Amino acid sequence: MRISQAMEGKIPDDRVILGIDPGTNVTGYGIIGCSGNKMALMTYGIIDMTKSKGDHPDKLKKIFERVLSLIDEFHPDEVSLEAPFYGKNIQSMLKLGRAQGVAMAAALYRNIPIVEYAPKKVKMSITGNGNASKEQVSRMLETLLNFKAEGLLDATDGLALAVCHFFQNAKPGSKAGGSSKGQSNWKSFISENPNRLKKN
Amino acid sequence: MRISQAMEGKIPDDRVILGIDPGTNVTGYGIIGCSGNKMALMTYGIIDMTKSKGDHPDKLKKIFERVLSLIDEFHPDEVSLEAPFYGKNIQSMLKLGRAQGVAMAAALYRNIPIVEYAPKKVKMSITGNGNASKEQVSRMLETLLNFKAEGLLDATDGLALAVCHFFQNAKPGSKAGGSSKGQSNWKSFISENPNRLKKN
Repeated sequence: MRISQAMEGKIPDDRVILGIDPGTNVTGYGIIGCSGNKMALMTYGIIDMTKSKGDHPDKLKKIFERVLSLIDEFHPDEVSLEAPFYGKNIQSMLKLGRAQGVAMAAALYRNIPIVEYAPKKVKMSITGNGNASKEQVSRMLETLLNFKAEGLLDATDGLALAVCHFFQNAKPGSKAGGSSKGQSNWKSFISENPNRLKKN
Repeated sequence: MRISQAMEGKIPDDRVILGIDPGTNVTGYGIIGCSGNKMALMTYGIIDMTKSKGDHPDKLKKIFERVLSLIDEFHPDEVSLEAPFYGKNIQSMLKLGRAQGVAMAAALYRNIPIVEYAPKKVKMSITGNGNASKEQVSRMLETLLNFKAEGLLDATDGLALAVCHFFQNAKPGSKAGGSSKGQSNWKSFISENPNRLKKN
């Protein structure tokens, strides 16, 4: 799915945010367009390296090239990246760092600022609960962006980063902010956009 | 120093190798030109982020851009990279992984194959001792490439990766190999290039 049915007519694009959740096997991404306090889904998906027969550098190349092509197609103004995660395995952290590094290189090469968010911050921002499950995050994104996620939880992890940045980074008085306080989280977004709540 | 005094006249360039030792504060690099069993220094140096006032992404950008510009200036055929190093600090490993990732991204973007070597392998290949000090590695490189290293040990670490790859990767029958067995280490190189030994 590349275009949200949420916005009938024009997708807001005053500000475009690319969220990336880099991983060594699957990298999730999501792109939203924003204007004032409006946001809409532009695209989301995964870069799947699990079936890649290539060695480690070939997997990294896939991440770099795909992120660069997303940037060149959607022209994001900012990149929102999953922040350092403190795992237990040194080897995994080095590999994760490499995956993050190549994704960041694509953004840096195009001079796009990168903002990082910790996983708990993202979950808190989207669902109001820092320990929410991936499914809960995905369901809230479906409500906020009015689409059906089709179970691609790695992709919605990437999308969550973009939406988290939209909520967090609204600057007072900026056209992106929407209100003088900006959209600080889903609660204020929903209160100003009651039509986005699903009717059950 | 950009050109070795080792080779009077033309620098061999049948095969150009870029060695990179990525670090979060200093990244060392060295480039050698090779032809048969000959090699010569083309350039070496450091990408110094210690004085960078920028945040982490800006440091990574510096690595990516510098490596890309070295590639575009010297057209290396292969990149030799310091392989995963198993440290004790998870946070450091993630940062190191990112530095490796952006350096790799520059090579992958230009479709240059990357080979990785463990630090012990590099030291063994250059000095015959896997536990050699940086100073010992640097002195042996001065002998092999006939130049004065000027104490830039991070730079000679990068150069060591290029020379290690030259010694290791000579393929039987290839023009790069020099002999049917290739140059497997400094001993065979010196035995075939006695003039490279310093006269004391």
